[in-house]
Amino acid sequence: MDRRIIGYQDTSTPSSVVSRRAGEGALRNVGRSAHPDDTVVDVGGACIGAGRFAVIAGPCAVENEEQCMVVAEAVKRAGASMFRGGAFKPRTSPYDFQGLGASGIEILSRVKREFGLPIVSEIMDARDLDLFDDVDMLQVGARNMQNFTLLKALGKTDKPVLLKRGHAATIDELLMAAEYIAAGGNTRIVLCERGIRSFDPRTRNVFDVAAIAVLKGLTHLPVIADPSHATGHAELVAPVACAAVAAGADGLEIEVHHNPGAAASDGEQSLTPERFARLMKRVSAVEDALSHAAFR
Amino acid sequence: MDRRIIGYQDTSTPSSVVSRRAGEGALRNVGRSAHPDDTVVDVGGACIGAGRFAVIAGPCAVENEEQCMVVAEAVKRAGASMFRGGAFKPRTSPYDFQGLGASGIEILSRVKREFGLPIVSEIMDARDLDLFDDVDMLQVGARNMQNFTLLKALGKTDKPVLLKRGHAATIDELLMAAEYIAAGGNTRIVLCERGIRSFDPRTRNVFDVAAIAVLKGLTHLPVIADPSHATGHAELVAPVACAAVAAGADGLEIEVHHNPGAAASDGEQSLTPERFARLMKRVSAVEDALSHAAFR
Amino acid sequence: MDRRIIGYQDTSTPSSVVSRRAGEGALRNVGRSAHPDDTVVDVGGACIGAGRFAVIAGPCAVENEEQCMVVAEAVKRAGASMFRGGAFKPRTSPYDFQGLGASGIEILSRVKREFGLPIVSEIMDARDLDLFDDVDMLQVGARNMQNFTLLKALGKTDKPVLLKRGHAATIDELLMAAEYIAAGGNTRIVLCERGIRSFDPRTRNVFDVAAIAVLKGLTHLPVIADPSHATGHAELVAPVACAAVAAGADGLEIEVHHNPGAAASDGEQSLTPERFARLMKRVSAVEDALSHAAFR
Amino acid sequence: MDRRIIGYQDTSTPSSVVSRRAGEGALRNVGRSAHPDDTVVDVGGACIGAGRFAVIAGPCAVENEEQCMVVAEAVKRAGASMFRGGAFKPRTSPYDFQGLGASGIEILSRVKREFGLPIVSEIMDARDLDLFDDVDMLQVGARNMQNFTLLKALGKTDKPVLLKRGHAATIDELLMAAEYIAAGGNTRIVLCERGIRSFDPRTRNVFDVAAIAVLKGLTHLPVIADPSHATGHAELVAPVACAAVAAGADGLEIEVHHNPGAAASDGEQSLTPERFARLMKRVSAVEDALSHAAFR
Repeated sequence: MDRRIIGYQDTSTPSSVVSRRAGEGALRNVGRSAHPDDTVVDVGGACIGAGRFAVIAGPCAVENEEQCMVVAEAVKRAGASMFRGGAFKPRTSPYDFQGLGASGIEILSRVKREFGLPIVSEIMDARDLDLFDDVDMLQVGARNMQNFTLLKALGKTDKPVLLKRGHAATIDELLMAAEYIAAGGNTRIVLCERGIRSFDPRTRNVFDVAAIAVLKGLTHLPVIADPSHATGHAELVAPVACAAVAAGADGLEIEVHHNPGAAASDGEQSLTPERFARLMKRVSAVEDALSHAAFR
Repeated sequence: MDRRIIGYQDTSTPSSVVSRRAGEGALRNVGRSAHPDDTVVDVGGACIGAGRFAVIAGPCAVENEEQCMVVAEAVKRAGASMFRGGAFKPRTSPYDFQGLGASGIEILSRVKREFGLPIVSEIMDARDLDLFDDVDMLQVGARNMQNFTLLKALGKTDKPVLLKRGHAATIDELLMAAEYIAAGGNTRIVLCERGIRSFDPRTRNVFDVAAIAVLKGLTHLPVIADPSHATGHAELVAPVACAAVAAGADGLEIEVHHNPGAAASDGEQSLTPERFARLMKRVSAVEDALSHAAFR
Repeated sequence: MDRRIIGYQDTSTPSSVVSRRAGEGALRNVGRSAHPDDTVVDVGGACIGAGRFAVIAGPCAVENEEQCMVVAEAVKRAGASMFRGGAFKPRTSPYDFQGLGASGIEILSRVKREFGLPIVSEIMDARDLDLFDDVDMLQVGARNMQNFTLLKALGKTDKPVLLKRGHAATIDELLMAAEYIAAGGNTRIVLCERGIRSFDPRTRNVFDVAAIAVLKGLTHLPVIADPSHATGHAELVAPVACAAVAAGADGLEIEVHHNPGAAASDGEQSLTPERFARLMKRVSAVEDALSHAAFR
Repeated sequence: MDRRIIGYQDTSTPSSVVSRRAGEGALRNVGRSAHPDDTVVDVGGACIGAGRFAVIAGPCAVENEEQCMVVAEAVKRAGASMFRGGAFKPRTSPYDFQGLGASGIEILSRVKREFGLPIVSEIMDARDLDLFDDVDMLQVGARNMQNFTLLKALGKTDKPVLLKRGHAATIDELLMAAEYIAAGGNTRIVLCERGIRSFDPRTRNVFDVAAIAVLKGLTHLPVIADPSHATGHAELVAPVACAAVAAGADGLEIEVHHNPGAAASDGEQSLTPERFARLMKRVSAVEDALSHAAFR
């Protein structure tokens, strides 16, 4: 599917405030006008963007080697192209499990060697960069989207960065955060819509599906969706994943756990391997339907 | 003031409020437990719900007979099964065009006779019910979602009602508004997600795509989406429409105008007939893909 | 305090969207430019606006005569100048107590005769206007702020109207709703900030205290605050009431119940008479402090 | 998908999430139950909390020595007890002025020696701590409220920390962020309400005045308000500052610039020295009125 069809270029609305904040001039590297064609980001051999669709799957937190091996085997079989797992966890409370740290990264490395899946993990501190040597894509979480110290440090690396939208970040602020990374020389950036704060207690966040289409118009960077954090409920992950793909997303990040009830974090929103396999089939059906020539 | 009075204990309210407001018991008519199977609503021969997918299309406001005939011909040809048009318009300013009123309804009637399309129009005042005799589905707008006077009056009719979610209504409040209608004896209700208020100026509202999946779990009533009002931009209507369908929507309401630049209201979000025809193809592709038995 | 000091006229920010919606031209009757001096609204002898401060107090719902008499005696003694009580209640669920209706209004009339307090009660249906003959100020609730049918009907009466801000209404939409009433010939309007929907579960709504100052700059109408509905917790009513006065509010509406634990609705946010009396002292202290010449 | 899976029962999450996140047990150091009496934080001799009221004033960004000296002289004369100025600026765009850095801190040091005012400045990177040796209170900005790396580093210092609420942070998340600092051993923390994201374009953020009262109930830490960032408009700073004080704030942080029209950042919301002096008088009047024994 040529996603530029659903672009935004011809819209007159952006108010003066918006254009001042994220005008053509300001998005020197990540704006469509800077680079009209879609960018493909190669993450350890798995490509994303410009029609290359990728699914990143795995547990919220790396708990132990067995857990990761079991989940990795299952998600690879179902068609995921990258493995995710948190070794450094940003938790609301300082007394909650903070992740396994360096030894969590080592477990991810063993998963990578065992299954050939590129690995994705969140970095919270630029001083940890050495520990992430073997990690294929560095994730910046929603809480750190405007941690400019971290963004600038990542701009000086040559590693792909998965930048998640902040809880109350506007689309323009997300693009500007990407511009911080790009300004340092690193344009291997993948953006991720993961829900924004709102008033309805039925879902953890409101998944802003239109933001995907807006972003695809404003930037050449790949845009993926995280329906797990957006909704907070396993039952809602598949319909929201399909919606994201239908709106033009270039990929998905999905939490999968072989025993969600016993997960160290975010068990309520984690899919079992079986459920994940069903989701992959539904997502592929939507992806196939929209990639037919007739809709280009 | 003794500040310690405001202790943590008091915060048990959120969930108790929710369950009190929209618990199983409260949704006596519209809840899934009251009626496990999906409801089909027949609108003048066009069916919606339980796998019957329907698209309602037409101009935001009825402007004149020629406009309606031209648009009706086009949307029928593209596959729409109902025609919409506002005769009584709820406008933010009292000095904006308020709709043609009764003569607007007469124009809709002529469209109905000419093209055999059931007609849908917004009612703002229960005292106007007689004027809506020939209208097949009565629309309750977002601003009137909790106009209980109007809801109760509609509950005593036998006409299908299209109930739109309020700008800041929770999912449970939307269901309770439907329950007001159903409590009067009328359960021919179709719910509509049309975006909620949020902070990002890039879209008119935030389209809450997950709400569709949540609603389909909580109620047996059909749920449709209005991507035109949700986004406010013609370019975003197709991707958001496809997303809604992928999330499980039973239908769509789309604004179409033969000359959006000259529309009396909401021109920016109206599709041309050509664009609407392309949208119908994309939507059908998603609908087909997901209706395969394998994904049910 | 001359509230125009905290006016807004010299600000350059209003975006084009805002100025289009609520520009000078559109606020023909309620805008400051239409009428630079503050308006005083006389409600059955109790005046509000232009330095005249008024407190409206009473129970959320009229439950029975004894309740109203006990509460009215207490709030009058503490300094309230009007009595409020709901006879027609807009409830989220159709199965919750909907108010005593006409007999509730009769109880309010007896309170009025007994204590000489003007009475304020919510109207939900224009067809009930006759029942409100003896009511001194007609309240339009948040859910009906854009019930234009009701607003237009009230515009044709000569009764003061207390117009509450909708859950997700912008300041400009509130002013436009007032303009609907004023366009019909009735400019005896009092605006009320009562909190807007947001994400924090600690309070029922977010009380938008700055909106009071913004409104005082944009309109000559009196602006009051409802800290009871805004916060939803009795403990928070006094600090928020004082804040509203400090920001320039011309009055307050406060829920008081002689036995909050047994209230038919909103008991959690109702003050006991003793607590209300303490609140009145704190509010007066703030009011006095700011009305000194030095701060004009 | 079996839609009935998403039953009402699941909605018990909101409160359990809250109590898990910020229950009595979790707020081991900053909760009221851990320390019932109000904490006083001594910032280079200026005290805040437990009835000690303090105003921090100065420019958004340190631009040059002359600017700081002129503003410092003025705010000291008007009664401010601390001087603020940003040397490291978190800007949405990487191409905007990022602050003077280390030389900005040197200018602040000279202000401190010249006027005897303790200085407050924002830190964005734990690696800069040495540069902040002479700074009396380290400010953590809204964007870094959940930069746990930074919070943990500050927890190991013995310097007062001014922690600002994030744009979409709940009250409980703010308290948990403070707990991150306190868990490291540093309980010299001042919290700051500075507005949250919402939908109304009239103000930059919505100032959540009730949050001040809620926080004062939940924690023994001092709570101040920043009406400059909350509103974004100079005209609104005074009424919102007074409101904050009336709601129980222990202090204020106010942006002052001798020539707002030429400010390097945030000129629209900066007060002139004259306006700041008037604000101080109004604030003092409210403070005095409420500190009378009768209202405690």
